[in-house]
Amino acid sequence: MLHLFTDFGLQGPYVGQLHAAILREAPGLTVIDLLHDAPMFRPRAAAHLLAACAGESRPGEVFVCVVDPGVGTARRPVALQADGRWFVGPDNGLLDVVAARSAEAAWWEITWRPAQLSASFHGRDLFAPVGARIAAGEAPTSWGAPCPAPPQSVDEELAEIIYLDAYGNAMTGLRGDQVERHVLMAAGGERLSYRRTFGEAATGEAFWYVNSLGLVEIAVNHGSAAARLGLTIGMPVGREA
Amino acid sequence: MLHLFTDFGLQGPYVGQLHAAILREAPGLTVIDLLHDAPMFRPRAAAHLLAACAGESRPGEVFVCVVDPGVGTARRPVALQADGRWFVGPDNGLLDVVAARSAEAAWWEITWRPAQLSASFHGRDLFAPVGARIAAGEAPTSWGAPCPAPPQSVDEELAEIIYLDAYGNAMTGLRGDQVERHVLMAAGGERLSYRRTFGEAATGEAFWYVNSLGLVEIAVNHGSAAARLGLTIGMPVGREA
Amino acid sequence: MLHLFTDFGLQGPYVGQLHAAILREAPGLTVIDLLHDAPMFRPRAAAHLLAACAGESRPGEVFVCVVDPGVGTARRPVALQADGRWFVGPDNGLLDVVAARSAEAAWWEITWRPAQLSASFHGRDLFAPVGARIAAGEAPTSWGAPCPAPPQSVDEELAEIIYLDAYGNAMTGLRGDQVERHVLMAAGGERLSYRRTFGEAATGEAFWYVNSLGLVEIAVNHGSAAARLGLTIGMPVGREA
Repeated sequence: MLHLFTDFGLQGPYVGQLHAAILREAPGLTVIDLLHDAPMFRPRAAAHLLAACAGESRPGEVFVCVVDPGVGTARRPVALQADGRWFVGPDNGLLDVVAARSAEAAWWEITWRPAQLSASFHGRDLFAPVGARIAAGEAPTSWGAPCPAPPQSVDEELAEIIYLDAYGNAMTGLRGDQVERHVLMAAGGERLSYRRTFGEAATGEAFWYVNSLGLVEIAVNHGSAAARLGLTIGMPVGREA
Repeated sequence: MLHLFTDFGLQGPYVGQLHAAILREAPGLTVIDLLHDAPMFRPRAAAHLLAACAGESRPGEVFVCVVDPGVGTARRPVALQADGRWFVGPDNGLLDVVAARSAEAAWWEITWRPAQLSASFHGRDLFAPVGARIAAGEAPTSWGAPCPAPPQSVDEELAEIIYLDAYGNAMTGLRGDQVERHVLMAAGGERLSYRRTFGEAATGEAFWYVNSLGLVEIAVNHGSAAARLGLTIGMPVGREA
Repeated sequence: MLHLFTDFGLQGPYVGQLHAAILREAPGLTVIDLLHDAPMFRPRAAAHLLAACAGESRPGEVFVCVVDPGVGTARRPVALQADGRWFVGPDNGLLDVVAARSAEAAWWEITWRPAQLSASFHGRDLFAPVGARIAAGEAPTSWGAPCPAPPQSVDEELAEIIYLDAYGNAMTGLRGDQVERHVLMAAGGERLSYRRTFGEAATGEAFWYVNSLGLVEIAVNHGSAAARLGLTIGMPVGREA
C-alpha cells in the first residue's frame, strides 16, 4: 500500500501523473490519495499533519510525500525508514516529525536519477518511482545509500494552525493526548474550552476538541471557526492552564 | 466492488483514510469514489440521490454510505441487504429509499465495535471496515445481528432540489419515468417545459429533462439554473399538468 | 492501464460512474484519473493537452477521452490506435493532435451500442465500456469497424492558452522543444522572457518556461499569471524573435 501526501491540489494532471508513474513502475500496487491539500509550501507545518495521518499505518506501507518548495535547488531527495514504514520525499523537514516519533529511524539518500528529470516535477520523476520500487520490495541499495539524519530542529508539537478544512475547522500541531482537558486554547483573540464532541457545544460556540487524527482542533458548532475567529495557517495557538 | 457515498467533500484526509481503512481490512478490493459531495447533513435528500446512483449496481456490490450528522449520538449503525447488494451506514433515513424500492430488503444492526472508535469519524472506524468485511465475503453474523426495519416515512419521490452540480444544474428527487412529458415544473417562480436534451432548448432557456441518473433535473442551456432561478438544496419543486 | 481524460470536474457522481462502468466491464483493471478539468467544451484546446499528457504513455495503455459538447448530436464515437496506444472518444478534434503526432494511426468507428444509451452521458454508456473492452484485450471488430481518419485541420501546435492551473499558471499549446529560448512570448500585453525554473525569476516577475508536460507555460514567481496578465483559456500567445 502506497500513500500519496502532497500539496498539489486535485486540479490538473499532477496527481494522475503520480499515479501513472507509480503504476508503470509497480503494476497492481494499491495507491491511496491520502491528502493532496497539505499546507502549500510549508513543509514544517505539513510534517505535523503527515505524522498524524500516518498514525494508523502499518509496517510495509510506503508514503510518497511532496511539499517541496525547493524543487530544483540543493535540497536532497531522501527516504526515511521509520518503524517498518517508508517515507519518501525532500529533506526539508517534511519527514522530521515522523522520524522524531519513531522508535527506529534510518535515513537513505536517493542517489538514483531517472533518464529524464524535469526541473519542476520531482514528485513524478523521482519520488514516485522510488516509492513504487520500495513498495515492490526492491532493496534500498538499488536506488540509494545510507545517510546521516538531517539536522533536526523539530518540536514534538507545533502550537500553530496547520490545516483548515472545507468546513472551517482548524487543525493544530498539538496532540490531544498531550493536553489536559481543563486547558483553555487561546486562538484568534478568544479563549476556548474543551468539548468532547460537536454535540456538547452550544450552537455557534467556538471550542476545541480532539479530532479523528488525534490533533487538537478548533471548531464552531454549526459554523466556521476559520471565519468566526479569523484563523489562518501558521497562526499561533496558546495554552492557558 | 465497494462504492463510497459521502458528504465529506474531496479536501482533507477523510476520503483517503476511508480507502486505507477498507484496504487494510480487505487488500485488493476495488474501491470506487461514487460521490463525496452528497447534500451535507441531509440524509433524506441524500437517500434519493443514493437510490438513483445505485440504480445500475449489481448483486454483490457494497456501498459505504456516510451522511451522518448524528455521529456520536444514539442513531444506530446498520447494514441493509437489498436485492443482493449491501448498503452500510447510519439508520437516519439515508438507506430508506433504496430499501423501499427493493423487492427484498433485510436489515442488520452492526454490533461489532473496533478497538478504537473515535467520537467523530465512524465512517473510517466502523462503516468502512464493516463494508470491507462484507465485500470480502464475511458472514453478517461476524459483525451484526438481524434487526427490524427502521420506521420509515419515505416517499417514493421527493419533490425538492436534492443536488446542485458544478454547472448549476439542479437534480430533484423526482424520477423521470414517473412524470409525463407534458407536465410543467414549477421552480424558482417559473414554469418549465420538458426538453429531451440541452440541444433542444434555446440558448439561455430554463427547462427540465431526465438526467443520466433517471432523475428530473432543472437546467439552463449554456447557463446555470441555480443562479438564474435562485435554486438551493431543499427548495420545493411543483408539478403542473 | 486505462486513463480518464475529461472535462467533468471532480464534483458529482460522474467520474465515479465512469469508474464503475469500466470496472463492471473489466474487473481488476487499473484506472487512472489523469485529468478531469480539461478545458470545458473546447475539444481542440483539450486535444493539445491530451497529446502532452499522453507523452509518457506506453503501448497497450488506453485513454477514455470525453470533452464532448456535441453529445447526442451527429458526431461519431471513434477509437484511435496510435503507436500501440488506444484513445476512445468523440470525433470532434479531441483525438486529432495525438493522431497527427503518431507514426502509425488507425481509426475505428464505434458501432456497438449498449442496451441503454442515455442522451447526455455517452462517457459512461459508450466510451467507458468500449475503453474497458479494449484494455481487456477484446478484438476491435467486436465493437467497431475501421473508418477513414476524420478530416483534420490540426496544427502541430496551438498558440493559445489551453489550461489554467490552480496557482494561476497558464499552459499554452506550444511545445517547449519547438521554441528557441531567446524568443519572447507576448501574452496579456506583456513580452515575457524565458526562465529555466521559477527560482531563476525574480519575485513577482512574469516569464515563460517549459513545464513538466513539455509545454510552454506562462507563470509569475510567487504569484498568479492568470490574475496578473488577465489570461483566459483561448487567449492567443505571440512569439517574437
